[in-house]
Amino acid sequence: MLSLQELEKVFDALWFLNRSITGDGVRETHKILSNYIPLNTYEVPTGTKVFDWSVPREWKVNQAYIIDPDGKKLCDFSENNLHLVNYSIPFQGKLTLNELRPRLHTMPELPSAIPYKTSYYRETWGFCLSFDQYNCLKEGIYEVVVDTELFVGSMTISDFLIEGESDKEILVHTYTCHPSLAINELSGVLVTLATASALASRSDNYYSYRFVFAPETIGAITYISQNFEHLKASLIGGLISTCVGHDKEYQYKSSRSGESLIDRAIKCYFTRNSSKELIWKEFSPSGSDERQYCSLGVNLPVGSLMRTPYHQYPEYHTSLDNKNIISFDALLETSNTYVEVFKLLEENKVYQSTTPYCEPFMSNYDGLYFNKDHRFASDLTKAVKWLIHFCDGKSDLFSISEKSGLDIYLIVEAAKKMHSCGLLKTID
Amino acid sequence: MLSLQELEKVFDALWFLNRSITGDGVRETHKILSNYIPLNTYEVPTGTKVFDWSVPREWKVNQAYIIDPDGKKLCDFSENNLHLVNYSIPFQGKLTLNELRPRLHTMPELPSAIPYKTSYYRETWGFCLSFDQYNCLKEGIYEVVVDTELFVGSMTISDFLIEGESDKEILVHTYTCHPSLAINELSGVLVTLATASALASRSDNYYSYRFVFAPETIGAITYISQNFEHLKASLIGGLISTCVGHDKEYQYKSSRSGESLIDRAIKCYFTRNSSKELIWKEFSPSGSDERQYCSLGVNLPVGSLMRTPYHQYPEYHTSLDNKNIISFDALLETSNTYVEVFKLLEENKVYQSTTPYCEPFMSNYDGLYFNKDHRFASDLTKAVKWLIHFCDGKSDLFSISEKSGLDIYLIVEAAKKMHSCGLLKTID
Amino acid sequence: MLSLQELEKVFDALWFLNRSITGDGVRETHKILSNYIPLNTYEVPTGTKVFDWSVPREWKVNQAYIIDPDGKKLCDFSENNLHLVNYSIPFQGKLTLNELRPRLHTMPELPSAIPYKTSYYRETWGFCLSFDQYNCLKEGIYEVVVDTELFVGSMTISDFLIEGESDKEILVHTYTCHPSLAINELSGVLVTLATASALASRSDNYYSYRFVFAPETIGAITYISQNFEHLKASLIGGLISTCVGHDKEYQYKSSRSGESLIDRAIKCYFTRNSSKELIWKEFSPSGSDERQYCSLGVNLPVGSLMRTPYHQYPEYHTSLDNKNIISFDALLETSNTYVEVFKLLEENKVYQSTTPYCEPFMSNYDGLYFNKDHRFASDLTKAVKWLIHFCDGKSDLFSISEKSGLDIYLIVEAAKKMHSCGLLKTID
Repeated sequence: MLSLQELEKVFDALWFLNRSITGDGVRETHKILSNYIPLNTYEVPTGTKVFDWSVPREWKVNQAYIIDPDGKKLCDFSENNLHLVNYSIPFQGKLTLNELRPRLHTMPELPSAIPYKTSYYRETWGFCLSFDQYNCLKEGIYEVVVDTELFVGSMTISDFLIEGESDKEILVHTYTCHPSLAINELSGVLVTLATASALASRSDNYYSYRFVFAPETIGAITYISQNFEHLKASLIGGLISTCVGHDKEYQYKSSRSGESLIDRAIKCYFTRNSSKELIWKEFSPSGSDERQYCSLGVNLPVGSLMRTPYHQYPEYHTSLDNKNIISFDALLETSNTYVEVFKLLEENKVYQSTTPYCEPFMSNYDGLYFNKDHRFASDLTKAVKWLIHFCDGKSDLFSISEKSGLDIYLIVEAAKKMHSCGLLKTID
Repeated sequence: MLSLQELEKVFDALWFLNRSITGDGVRETHKILSNYIPLNTYEVPTGTKVFDWSVPREWKVNQAYIIDPDGKKLCDFSENNLHLVNYSIPFQGKLTLNELRPRLHTMPELPSAIPYKTSYYRETWGFCLSFDQYNCLKEGIYEVVVDTELFVGSMTISDFLIEGESDKEILVHTYTCHPSLAINELSGVLVTLATASALASRSDNYYSYRFVFAPETIGAITYISQNFEHLKASLIGGLISTCVGHDKEYQYKSSRSGESLIDRAIKCYFTRNSSKELIWKEFSPSGSDERQYCSLGVNLPVGSLMRTPYHQYPEYHTSLDNKNIISFDALLETSNTYVEVFKLLEENKVYQSTTPYCEPFMSNYDGLYFNKDHRFASDLTKAVKWLIHFCDGKSDLFSISEKSGLDIYLIVEAAKKMHSCGLLKTID
Repeated sequence: MLSLQELEKVFDALWFLNRSITGDGVRETHKILSNYIPLNTYEVPTGTKVFDWSVPREWKVNQAYIIDPDGKKLCDFSENNLHLVNYSIPFQGKLTLNELRPRLHTMPELPSAIPYKTSYYRETWGFCLSFDQYNCLKEGIYEVVVDTELFVGSMTISDFLIEGESDKEILVHTYTCHPSLAINELSGVLVTLATASALASRSDNYYSYRFVFAPETIGAITYISQNFEHLKASLIGGLISTCVGHDKEYQYKSSRSGESLIDRAIKCYFTRNSSKELIWKEFSPSGSDERQYCSLGVNLPVGSLMRTPYHQYPEYHTSLDNKNIISFDALLETSNTYVEVFKLLEENKVYQSTTPYCEPFMSNYDGLYFNKDHRFASDLTKAVKWLIHFCDGKSDLFSISEKSGLDIYLIVEAAKKMHSCGLLKTID
């Protein structure tokens, strides 16, 4: 398990890297992450066909800035990589302010913020600056330098598999393509890293755990495209990790069906943890990479367990989404929640009673049945009673917890005791 | 499309005709209607077996009235055809007031109204008069003349088919058997006429449209009996048009299942037209000719889109259900609504994504995907996103509109654009 | 039908008998009951295997008491059989108060009550006394006499079958193993007796009726074990009769599915009897012998129709559960309710319309269809209309009553009339 200090150290190391959907910023990011978990990093060449898409050219920035009529340097990429529209094509020239204006992006409703803009699949260039600074620009000739390169190269993806007892897998997927954004980039990366680190240190994993770091959209599409048969055969559930840096309530966006195992695990976990508030949203086609995992033909059981999501916090996609608004405590707590949800999912077995005809003669089964008078029955006894009547070989423990209103952990404990004294058998 | 003036002209022409389930009043009614749409009118002979029923004898009224002890003429059929109980058998004779009383029908709760009564399948006679007038009758001898004829003849039915691109049909059915009633007879006739006229003038009808004018109950039973195989094979939805003359909210009585295409079209249309209020009622066995279309063995998807229905307005089945309480604006608006619902139904296709594996590469599909940042996405972009994820070859556009909460017309527009650029294909 | 006086006489005769899961108290109880209904009583030998259980040794009490340091007799079994822990093994000896204390059971929250305790499957002994008396015990030597016998014998069970027209059966099951408890023992016995007596006196029973008197748990398990194939083939519904002695609202604990015929009969009956309040509880694994009937592998449609159930009244399982708190009027009313529910169940046929294509020509079917104007239609006419449209050969009358909102008795009456004039046929 990573400490708060380690998380902050990784944050600081990743912050200034110029991430995009391709390029050295991503490569360096994955290299830093691999200091903590043994990532399997590989490159997908430009032009590789992935479903309806193909991997784009690689992008590199040498320098980018504007010289104003007074000779002052503005929008210097070396000061903040958000100043340059991501994937800008090369340009060099002199423009009047009026010619320059259409190339400048601001955010009037947050006048001190530099917005984050991309032009991945349109060949154009532009700069982003605060609305405050934009309003101070004076008439005259501006010198523009966009010294970038777009060339046949490759896109960087990493994954990491922790093998458990079963070859059925649980996935955590996050993206690594936004430069200098805290909540909407590094929070997901850090929670995924912390979760992987925590699970890798355990020897009792029943399921196998897969972690993927890839650029948003094109990276997820590429990963799914290249691993589709395997994922379809192995994946029993997954989470997209994004926007997990606030310390407010949780928000869960369900998988396509809303009733897959991971959806039910989340529901059961939060129902039983009254201290953690959950807002539940059905799957919709806006969001992050769950859009790809839950697309019509892919249809894998992947949801997204977030804190405050994209467009629900004002600093989203601006330079104000920075270290000031991220909570490292929240990152660790979220990672713990991921691990607890997964561990709960591992316990969600389907049992079948071995004595289905009338109740079993409980005096034969030591330590299970403490007091048959319902007024004095222990919680564990209540759980045993529900399991006797509802372990039908089809209902899983989540559903028995829901039906009985009893805590899932109590149900799990009772089921294990009943299993070890022969009252229940497991069903695959 | 008929104008307000034309509708009123038809109303006036039809008002005084002595309609019943058979006879010249019905024939004349259909003849007047055929000045506006090319009706196919035919006669079904008395005695024709139709399911459990047979077509009754034809009824003709020469004259009918009562002479009171003072020699004054009362209940004169020639003044108001509601005075004579519809289908009265012939009678001539002198009766004391006490002998006459059981033959007189009034409506004490609406003392100025002449009630509307029928005796179709019982051989009897009677008169209807206002409770006010009834209370003024004095003792003495009354002379009664019911100069009617019941003879082997025929029953008049008309239909009209507008052929569309598809041979699947949508039905509008109304009845023509009540004399001198506005809401509960002519409103349905006029809305059906206006709807037929409007659809006949269009060259873009996808479905075929069938319009039926027939006496209530026996006419509907006859029509179904004689066209059952065809209707069963062709009808995808229909509406009984009755009680459509008030300018209040709409009321829909669903087809038997409550979930047929026409039911869902109505639901979708009114959900998206917040200016039109809809009261939804599940199918029940009281009402009009939907009782026959929705009977157990027939079970066709026919509902009834009304304004204020039978027994929900006080003048129902009395002489006060007249031109004073009908709104010609409401007739036109209702007819427009019928047409819009049908046109919406024509758009409700089932599409299947051609790129189901992950999202498509939208830059390849011109004009569809304006801004991938969800905060700035246009409504059309939102619709495209939902269609990408939910056009599974099974869900129709109504269901995607409902799931997404997006306007059905927006969904339709987006689907058409996606279809024309190859992202969607249609499913039959 | 038993009278109030007879019920009280049986109550008094049964009150002092020392019932347990075996022994002469039970035998004597069944003998007294067989004065009113022809019980088939039989003995199941000690050691008989029944599913996971085996029938225990028989228990007999010769005498049991304690002599206090002053020579006063305490906890004398001959005064109140609750004083001795049921199934106490023999013991004779002298103990200090401190040695005695762990053997003494009290109920501090009801200080004047002697609690009821058993030790069926643990070999131990003990006494029960009021908390008030317990607090007066003084230091010193106590002489204890538990003169009991446990020996190879048998367990007593009785049943009684009333044969009806059909060999499908309805069950009423009650237990006879608690000594001197009114609500939680004799109320169930008396309601079962009264119900059996009432049904035996009728000659119009459609279903057959089975009544079982047996010790709780081991008796029910034994009965099910020895009659499983027959019950599985014959039982269409049943009730466990217990805690039926209060005159408050009814409480129903449903069968496992909550939607079996008996569950639906209860729901329909109480919906239509607004003077009787019903609290509905889904099946749960605490309670009485429905736990065995509804166990996973047995899964018979048996619920429990109670008044105030176990642990919902404070005197439960104490000497205060006595004649003072039982209402003989309530016993009779409950028995009437049982009979009425069963008779309702007998009427719940599945009919199919013989004229499914459009409505039938009602003038042909005498006395059924009084007024086709919905405003003046009788309730019976309304019921006929619903049956015409919903007797599809699958829906039973309960479901048509629920769908229409019409009283089930009205629906039954209309269905019978329609059946006798040929409009409906029955479906098995």
